[in-house]
Formats: sequence, C-alpha cells, structure tokens
Amino acid sequence: MPSPAERPSNGLWIVGIGPGRNEYMTGRAADVISRSEYVIGNDSYLDSIRPLLEGKQVIRSSMGKEIERAKKAIELAQSHTVSIVSGGDAGVYGMAGIVLEVLEHSKEKIPVEIVPGVTAANAAASLIGSPLSGDFAVISLSDLLTPLEVIERRLDAVFSVGIPVVIYNPRSHGRPHNFALAIEHARKFYPPTVPVAVVKNALREGQADPLIVTLGEIEHIMEDVDMHTTVIIGGSESRIWRMGNDVKGIITPRGYHRKYVY
Amino acid sequence: MPSPAERPSNGLWIVGIGPGRNEYMTGRAADVISRSEYVIGNDSYLDSIRPLLEGKQVIRSSMGKEIERAKKAIELAQSHTVSIVSGGDAGVYGMAGIVLEVLEHSKEKIPVEIVPGVTAANAAASLIGSPLSGDFAVISLSDLLTPLEVIERRLDAVFSVGIPVVIYNPRSHGRPHNFALAIEHARKFYPPTVPVAVVKNALREGQADPLIVTLGEIEHIMEDVDMHTTVIIGGSESRIWRMGNDVKGIITPRGYHRKYVY
Repeated sequence: MPSPAERPSNGLWIVGIGPGRNEYMTGRAADVISRSEYVIGNDSYLDSIRPLLEGKQVIRSSMGKEIERAKKAIELAQSHTVSIVSGGDAGVYGMAGIVLEVLEHSKEKIPVEIVPGVTAANAAASLIGSPLSGDFAVISLSDLLTPLEVIERRLDAVFSVGIPVVIYNPRSHGRPHNFALAIEHARKFYPPTVPVAVVKNALREGQADPLIVTLGEIEHIMEDVDMHTTVIIGGSESRIWRMGNDVKGIITPRGYHRKYVY
Repeated sequence: MPSPAERPSNGLWIVGIGPGRNEYMTGRAADVISRSEYVIGNDSYLDSIRPLLEGKQVIRSSMGKEIERAKKAIELAQSHTVSIVSGGDAGVYGMAGIVLEVLEHSKEKIPVEIVPGVTAANAAASLIGSPLSGDFAVISLSDLLTPLEVIERRLDAVFSVGIPVVIYNPRSHGRPHNFALAIEHARKFYPPTVPVAVVKNALREGQADPLIVTLGEIEHIMEDVDMHTTVIIGGSESRIWRMGNDVKGIITPRGYHRKYVY
C-alpha cells in the first residue's frame, strides 16, 4: 500500500486509536495524527484523543454518518493530510472498509495508510485472563448491515466447533433481543458450565469491573449487557480462572495440558 | 484483575509488544517494561525491544520452552517486578494462557496484569486494505497442541458461513502440508474468485510486499507461505481491492451497500 511519505503534502491515514485510554494507542497512531492537518471522527473518539488535536482542523461527525465522513475525508485528502479515526482497530467494524469502498468508487488516487490498533476483543480479553488463547471468532450482533438470520447461522457454526466467540454490539435500544437470541444459540451446543464474560468500556473511560458468569447463570447479568459492552462466550474448553477462591476471569487452555505436566 | 500498583515491589506483567516495529507497541507496554526489573521472552521478541532493555535483567528463553518460561516468571514475580513479553497480543497464541494456567496450578497469589497489543490479524489486515471489516475467525494451523482433525472441523465451520479467516502458523518445516489442506477445505465452500492474501512479517523486520491472489491462483504462491506469514482467506463477500488498475488488497464490504448508495 502506498503510504503517505514522511512529510507528505496530502494523503489519508485511517487510524485505529485503540480502546480509548491513550496509553493503549500505538506510537504510530499518535504520530500520524500529529502530522495531520485534518482529523475526522465521531465525538467519542475525538474526545478520547483531545490532547492530540491542538492546532488541527477537527471535523466532528455523527454515528450513522459513516459514508458522508468517508467522502469528506477523501475529498480533503486530495490536497491535505487527513486522519480519519476509529475506535479500536480501524479494520474491525471500523472506518477502513467503508472508506476504501467509497475511495474505489470515486476513482480517485490518493496515498492511503491504515494504522492498526488494539481492537475491543483483545482489550476486553486482557481484563479477564486469557479467554482467546487459541482459535476464536468475532461476531457482531448488530443487524443494521447484516441480516439477523445470517448472524444466527454464523453463531451456530462457531458454537458447533467449540471456539470462543467475541460478541461486538451485543445489545442496544434498537435491538434489545439479539443478545438473548445469541445465548439461546449457545445453549444448543454448550453445557451450562461454559463461562461468559461481560466487559464494559474495556480500557476506556467508564470501565467497570468485568462480570464473569456461566451460561447457566447468565440471566442475572442480562441487564448489564449494552452497547458499551463486549461479551466473550467461552468455547467448549474454556473454564473459570480462579486465584485462591476469587473468580478472576476465563482461561481457554491452548492445549499444553495435552502434552505436558505442569 | 489486580494490577501491579503504580510503584509495585513485585508482580507480573504479561505484555503484548505488538507486531515488532516499536512504533506499533502501545504506550502501556513500553511503560510496564520500563518499570520491570526482569524481562523474560524469546530471542526474537527481546531483540525487537532492545532499546527498552537497558539496565534490566534479561532472561532469554527458547521457542517451545513456554512452560519453563512461565514458571520462571512466576517465581521471580514473588519478589520482583517482571515483564514476560509476547509478540502481537499476549492473549492470542501468546504467553497469557499458559502463564495463568501455571500460576493457578502453583496456588501462588501475585499481582498480574495483561497488557494487550496489536495482534498479527490486525497488523496483516492493515497492510492489505480491509479484509476483516465485519465478522471473522482466527485459526492456527499448528497441530502441535490441537489435533489436526479439530482444526479441519473448525475451518469447515467458518468457511461454511462465509466469514473471512485469519490463518496463524500456516506452514512450517514440521507441518508442510497443513496449508494446502486448509485450501482444500476452503475450495469445498468457495468459488475460485475468493481472494487470499499472504502477508510476510507484517509491521516488523523483514516485511515483504503482501501477495494478493484468488483461491483459483493460489498454487503460484504456495511456496511463499511459511511460519513468518499470516494468511487471510477472504469470506464469501470479500473481493479484490483496486486503485486504478493496481491490485491493492482485499475489501470485505460490511454491508453498507445493502442500505446506501455511494
């Protein structure tokens, strides 16, 4: 991919700023934002990087206005340096896909670089032990852009082979029932002992203590699941992780126990 | 999770250092390493963070010695500050799982914090456009710790629902045929037009230009796949991304095209 030169006159960086707290941003993300004339993003992401925005042209956009935001960024990047920012990793339910689609459609040629970030799956997992030690899947329950029956088939497929699943967008006002539906699908394949974690605002403002339960107990925490949470449903080999008597999180053994004694 | 206090006298950080180039490390990772008396890891990871190691006790370990490394880190962390470092994200095919398993087994109580990093899936994806825009799966082809037939079932499950798959550990001297086997499974479900990317040493020393092909053309690049590559097999909706006539990478549309005109 052509990346903007070290002192470019124009170009577009599509930047994953990480989970939210600035110490979890990469140096590269901070660096390209500092070299941008324009920074474009929605309010919550721009607020979380406020210290980096001094002296910049800042364009605030709304959730749901991704296409307008992409068009504006591409237009400005014809003659300016522009960062369009996304929470987590820009390539995972972020701005990278739609920006590149709009760019391709526009037939414009501009230098583009995508700067990866720590995505919510890894941020949430880091707070609850090691639930994703091996293979895993990432699935969004938002049916705004993907039909619900497609999402249900995907859930069944991954549950059927027992790998942990990270659930993005588990629940919102517009779709209050999708999370309960996902749990129903999990119960078709798993015993009630499989662990589930609800992690709210992982590594960003408003972070709450993660909730660790099992599939059998999940009704107790249903109301805690909202659009600010990431849910990790363990796989067939995942188990609760304890230190002494305290429940600390989830471990999915990678398989060392099949080969070694420790 | 109890995290080591800001000036702890002892404790263990399990640190994801990102893909390799230091600018892709988080500030938190650099910070906890700087506050550690001991840093433990294998040679390639320690080499990539050499500037951070001055004045530290450095313990070099070998690939395959993960359990010994975990035990040593836990033992030292009884009375010292210790970072055990992993490439990418420590929770994804990294050290977090085995360290926590060994810790649990030891019955010791020490402060532990896991520091997330940019994992190879996101690093590789960032170099080839937006192949993981929506749901995706991460699967390792290493059958060292997971039986091959389990891996094959997992591949079939995710291919059957058309989501992109990031392949870790696609090929090595010990298992030269697993990648070809994975491709056979993909062909059971996908037409030959589905795009595949081979990304070597993404965002670390030795990075090569990514190779973008289709399932139908993959024989041409079979020899380029090795233990330093991450392979992304697109999903049923993924397509080649072009700028003008140049092949730039892969786009997996997230679904905006089903709702909007752009």
